[in-house]
Amino acid sequence: MIIEKRLNELNIKLPKCPKPAAIYVPVVLSDKFIFVSGQTPKDGNTLLYRGKLGKDLTIEEGYEASRVCALRCISALKSVVADLDDIEGILKLTGYVNSCDNFYSQSQVINGASEIIEEIFGDKGKHARVAVGVNTLPGNAAVEIELIAKVKEVSTKE
Amino acid sequence: MIIEKRLNELNIKLPKCPKPAAIYVPVVLSDKFIFVSGQTPKDGNTLLYRGKLGKDLTIEEGYEASRVCALRCISALKSVVADLDDIEGILKLTGYVNSCDNFYSQSQVINGASEIIEEIFGDKGKHARVAVGVNTLPGNAAVEIELIAKVKEVSTKE
Amino acid sequence: MIIEKRLNELNIKLPKCPKPAAIYVPVVLSDKFIFVSGQTPKDGNTLLYRGKLGKDLTIEEGYEASRVCALRCISALKSVVADLDDIEGILKLTGYVNSCDNFYSQSQVINGASEIIEEIFGDKGKHARVAVGVNTLPGNAAVEIELIAKVKEVSTKE
Repeated sequence: MIIEKRLNELNIKLPKCPKPAAIYVPVVLSDKFIFVSGQTPKDGNTLLYRGKLGKDLTIEEGYEASRVCALRCISALKSVVADLDDIEGILKLTGYVNSCDNFYSQSQVINGASEIIEEIFGDKGKHARVAVGVNTLPGNAAVEIELIAKVKEVSTKE
Repeated sequence: MIIEKRLNELNIKLPKCPKPAAIYVPVVLSDKFIFVSGQTPKDGNTLLYRGKLGKDLTIEEGYEASRVCALRCISALKSVVADLDDIEGILKLTGYVNSCDNFYSQSQVINGASEIIEEIFGDKGKHARVAVGVNTLPGNAAVEIELIAKVKEVSTKE
Repeated sequence: MIIEKRLNELNIKLPKCPKPAAIYVPVVLSDKFIFVSGQTPKDGNTLLYRGKLGKDLTIEEGYEASRVCALRCISALKSVVADLDDIEGILKLTGYVNSCDNFYSQSQVINGASEIIEEIFGDKGKHARVAVGVNTLPGNAAVEIELIAKVKEVSTKE
């Protein structure tokens, strides 16, 4: 329960596992790999951060938005493992930032996700990363984050 | 031949395996994972759906376009397995929607791909998903879809 | 040392392994899969190709930019294997092209990456590929490339 302890210490309450908005699932566990669907910065079904970086939102708001997305990803991970300690590593994170054409600070925005992941998972949270800008996202979400993780053993909750 | 039967029942004739437009391959099988290259809504070499959602195409047309992309992905999968029943699962689908800056219904567009995959593969078709908007795509395609799948056994056709 | 020899024959000196601009790592090796973080066309910390295809840069410049990104990806791969010959295959490459809304030649741009990879790795370099346009990238980079590769054996340098 190391990771759960750390979440408590960080005073983080994970959101409920996201429900997909459509006909797909929030998370797939296959062999030892976990694929998490793209998460937008929602609280339940309410989108918290909407609009384009460089116009509607500050970098700080984008940073917060990307942190919210990451917590939803972790909640999705949690739904397929017996314990978050069973996560062997966060392998790759891709962050899409809803951006104006001349906004170039996607890295700073996606740091909100990367930092909370490393805070929670420590060395196991060290991930490869892709941060890009896009001109729009579903529901006009400010950020969308997806990730691939690895679990220690093949079978856990499934 | 369960999947082939279902394709027949659904009256779906898979397109020919896509040929890459450049110096890469449409599909890579490695271990048990299959990586399918990004597919645009083509019939052979002819792009069927061109332009931006929110301006040039309706959501319904985008939905159809994403369905065409998905069928090309399945055709690519088929090219590396002895039988489509050997597909253990569709793990992750990423859908890029050619979008105007104020088009926010990427999920509805990519449902065209997700729904046909679940219709064909049933529970094995339940995938993690990423749907994003982009300001342009190769050839001005309306949609581009890539996916990762898993095959039951290591060696099949290869 | 076959790949190193080929690099010599091609007169290619790999760049230093990229350092991440933020709190993530340039490359993650997990099991036999290697995930390389998105690389922009940098020499050290200097971005060599900046701006949007279709306005600021020609296709030829974009092609060169994507080649530079690919070499950085290979340098990242090299940092986690004892020898580049241990790379069993380049599985998937995703290329994001900083594009004007009416630029549609992303494939030609990303060919710069695909071609150098196949020149260096031969058949092992035959990869699945995704090429998309985006309206902006970190630092206004012209191109960003990420890839997934597979290594022959589980443990190498790690």
